[in-house]
Amino acid sequence: MVRYKAIISYDGTLFNGFQRQPKGTRTVQEELEKTLKQINSGKKVSVHGAGRTDAGVHAYGQVIHFDLDDNRDIEKLRFALDSQTPEDIAVVTVEIVSEDFHARYQKHFKTYEFLVDIGRSKNPMMRHYATSYPYPLNIALIKLAIKDLVGQHDFTGFTASGSSIENKVRTISKADVIFDEKRQFLIFTFTANGFLYKQVRNMVGTLLKIGNERMPVGQIAKVLESKNRQDAGPTAAGNGLYLKEIIYED
Amino acid sequence: MVRYKAIISYDGTLFNGFQRQPKGTRTVQEELEKTLKQINSGKKVSVHGAGRTDAGVHAYGQVIHFDLDDNRDIEKLRFALDSQTPEDIAVVTVEIVSEDFHARYQKHFKTYEFLVDIGRSKNPMMRHYATSYPYPLNIALIKLAIKDLVGQHDFTGFTASGSSIENKVRTISKADVIFDEKRQFLIFTFTANGFLYKQVRNMVGTLLKIGNERMPVGQIAKVLESKNRQDAGPTAAGNGLYLKEIIYED
Repeated sequence: MVRYKAIISYDGTLFNGFQRQPKGTRTVQEELEKTLKQINSGKKVSVHGAGRTDAGVHAYGQVIHFDLDDNRDIEKLRFALDSQTPEDIAVVTVEIVSEDFHARYQKHFKTYEFLVDIGRSKNPMMRHYATSYPYPLNIALIKLAIKDLVGQHDFTGFTASGSSIENKVRTISKADVIFDEKRQFLIFTFTANGFLYKQVRNMVGTLLKIGNERMPVGQIAKVLESKNRQDAGPTAAGNGLYLKEIIYED
Repeated sequence: MVRYKAIISYDGTLFNGFQRQPKGTRTVQEELEKTLKQINSGKKVSVHGAGRTDAGVHAYGQVIHFDLDDNRDIEKLRFALDSQTPEDIAVVTVEIVSEDFHARYQKHFKTYEFLVDIGRSKNPMMRHYATSYPYPLNIALIKLAIKDLVGQHDFTGFTASGSSIENKVRTISKADVIFDEKRQFLIFTFTANGFLYKQVRNMVGTLLKIGNERMPVGQIAKVLESKNRQDAGPTAAGNGLYLKEIIYED
């Protein structure tokens, strides 16, 4: 048995998220497993992803692992997967890893990016790739508020209520926002040792409310303290979210 | 009668080009005229575009003009058009112009951009917005060859054969290419006082063949001299082409 790690990129628009669904709606995992089965003489191959992105969410750097019986030429395997998967999935790199590597359970840092199109008229080419927010924004307030997210916190107030995970403490090592004036985009970047369900979208939804001056700058700290989802802003749409990069420890 | 000039942007993916088609396939002009009719109490409004982009071709800076009976508030009109047109069309600006302004016949300079995704695995988010060319490319050769396009030339060899326009002399004032290493994109930019049918796509197809070393650097000069379409490279796909900007003389 040989374990392979691959970095994949996908356009989430036409997927019902990464993870295979019982009812068989279109998912990234299902498409990858379909292609792997083809190149594995019809034998089923299980794909394990590092993160379960939601419907409409994109990825430049999702990491998966899978096992094959034999040692393949890495570039031939990458090319076969890249060209045989549907055109909204790309296989960027493939490498052989030790048998105990696990895309999900091995410690790692994930980076998500969130694109907001703040143009007065939105960019039609980006309608599936950025969330439109054509309202007044005080970006300086967002830059102030976003700092409160950095560090180790209990992010209960920023996750969907009813989540089954017990430990909601995560450490955000990077949280910033830049304004791309030419394209009229806000680009949020968050790096952490893990994210809760809908956490990034809820943080962005809250930061946009702060920028729009319908919530005070101190609202982030308030949500972290109250752990109450009701104190946070609305969930920003998934089409602006990108799983950008995953870095594994050691 | 009041004449309005508007800058519009559209994602060409789901359009059969800008210009209305006899059979009623979906076109940008048709959608604009439908929306204008609605905001004009059901009275037909004709839209005149500066350029007739082909199926799949995008625009950031297409210019149109149309007439309404009355003097409208410009920003309200822009907002109504922007929000009532389908989501793959955006109305960026609207202004009132003199009655003799004509988007197509008034002298102007057009700038087209052409995006080529030269990544080994293509960016799935850009599959409708850049033409994939995952083959070896010597960009220095393209940079050399592209210079031969600048100036006043008879571009007959770069247009679709059988075109009905008699005068095929145009002046290209700018032709260059940059390499965006981070995104693995080549970005071509061409500015001229006019372009022939499929000219940009044929120039790009030829430049890519030169970069791939299947045509010599001197091929551009050869096509300009022979005026023979057979000497040029293949027509690059429309999905990489953008009508970027139109500047009018006056």
